[in-house]
Amino acid sequence: MRYTHTATLPLSWEESVQRTRDALAEQGFGILSEINVRATFEAKLGTEAAAAIGDYVILGACNPALASRALAAEPELGALLPCNVVVRRGKDAAVTTIDAIDPQTMVQLSDNPAVQDVANDADARLRKALAGLAASGAAAGVTPRA
Amino acid sequence: MRYTHTATLPLSWEESVQRTRDALAEQGFGILSEINVRATFEAKLGTEAAAAIGDYVILGACNPALASRALAAEPELGALLPCNVVVRRGKDAAVTTIDAIDPQTMVQLSDNPAVQDVANDADARLRKALAGLAASGAAAGVTPRA
Repeated sequence: MRYTHTATLPLSWEESVQRTRDALAEQGFGILSEINVRATFEAKLGTEAAAAIGDYVILGACNPALASRALAAEPELGALLPCNVVVRRGKDAAVTTIDAIDPQTMVQLSDNPAVQDVANDADARLRKALAGLAASGAAAGVTPRA
Repeated sequence: MRYTHTATLPLSWEESVQRTRDALAEQGFGILSEINVRATFEAKLGTEAAAAIGDYVILGACNPALASRALAAEPELGALLPCNVVVRRGKDAAVTTIDAIDPQTMVQLSDNPAVQDVANDADARLRKALAGLAASGAAAGVTPRA
């Protein structure tokens, strides 16, 4: 199965990161974690690995009310939270790519029916965030979930 | 499917968090992110929600060499990284529970064969970390993956 919703932005990496943050905030997601993969690779693996990955950040997006409902239904679901949103741009890429986790993966992995409602809500919000991003940047558009 | 490896420790939450960090470090995992869910709920949802969830932290564990191989094989795989390890203890619980994401979920979600090797390696390391934890705390043991 596909496990992300993806959009591309014809904008710089920095501007794409900012617009992604803004679009997530508009949909009620705070950013609880931020992992700069390029910087991590540079520190741990060296400059070659950092150059190979290019600009790459993983934003951990969380809507606390949704997370609270999800964890009440299934305490171990935190292993699948927060909703990760990758912003990445290879060194020779003409566009910046945004990959948001598809919350339906939670439904795929958990057999708890109560998780479905939360996943649907999170899914709708993440899709709106990506659609807004694509519109704001006159981007190539949101790839529908398969 | 089950999506976590789980162990319980008959130790305080604080000591369990520290032992979990140590066990992950021994297996080559750094902690790239740390989300205190209880504190987040208290700040965003109030004291009742915080009390309901109890002590709850999500550690984002990453082995940079494995992550580099995984992302070279499938750039969007960052949406499933880092490997989350939950340490949680409800208010009336007698033990602390550790839930590590089962990296085989990546294989379940991605159809890229190159991801399999990385997932197997990460899986072996996380299992060793949990087995070490269980042994160190004379815990109830590691629940085998279904």
